[in-house]
Amino acid sequence: MPTRPQIRAHVGDVLRSKREERGLTQEKLGFAGNLHRNYVGSVERGERNISVEALERWLAVLDLRWADFGRAVDAKTRKSKR
Amino acid sequence: MPTRPQIRAHVGDVLRSKREERGLTQEKLGFAGNLHRNYVGSVERGERNISVEALERWLAVLDLRWADFGRAVDAKTRKSKR
Repeated sequence: MPTRPQIRAHVGDVLRSKREERGLTQEKLGFAGNLHRNYVGSVERGERNISVEALERWLAVLDLRWADFGRAVDAKTRKSKR
Repeated sequence: MPTRPQIRAHVGDVLRSKREERGLTQEKLGFAGNLHRNYVGSVERGERNISVEALERWLAVLDLRWADFGRAVDAKTRKSKR
């Protein structure tokens, strides 16, 4: 079984970069997704183990499909193995 | 913001069908991924809000990339909107 470390950090990096691409602040994203601003920051820093329900709301605010999210996470994982 | 209901059920359906494609029992998947068999069943039935860390271990056992998982979840979501 392959080890895929640092998933929380990779997820946080992906969510942060997608938010920034869309020109959203953490406050705006939190408001639109009913997610507390502090929670948004801690997930983006890889401190929290986000659930699929919270992630679903988050992706909806970012107008991002799960497939797009998954591709970005896979890309992070590959980079970390170099 | 688009509503994408029933994410837990869709995730559970995807994980169950991928496990069955691989010919794995819930017991074998749980053992390989360090996930309790009862937990495996409840996630597959959409009763649990799985986190990205648990999902990461799960996908590793299924030898599934996040992008593949994401595409399958998106396909479920589209079907449910018909």
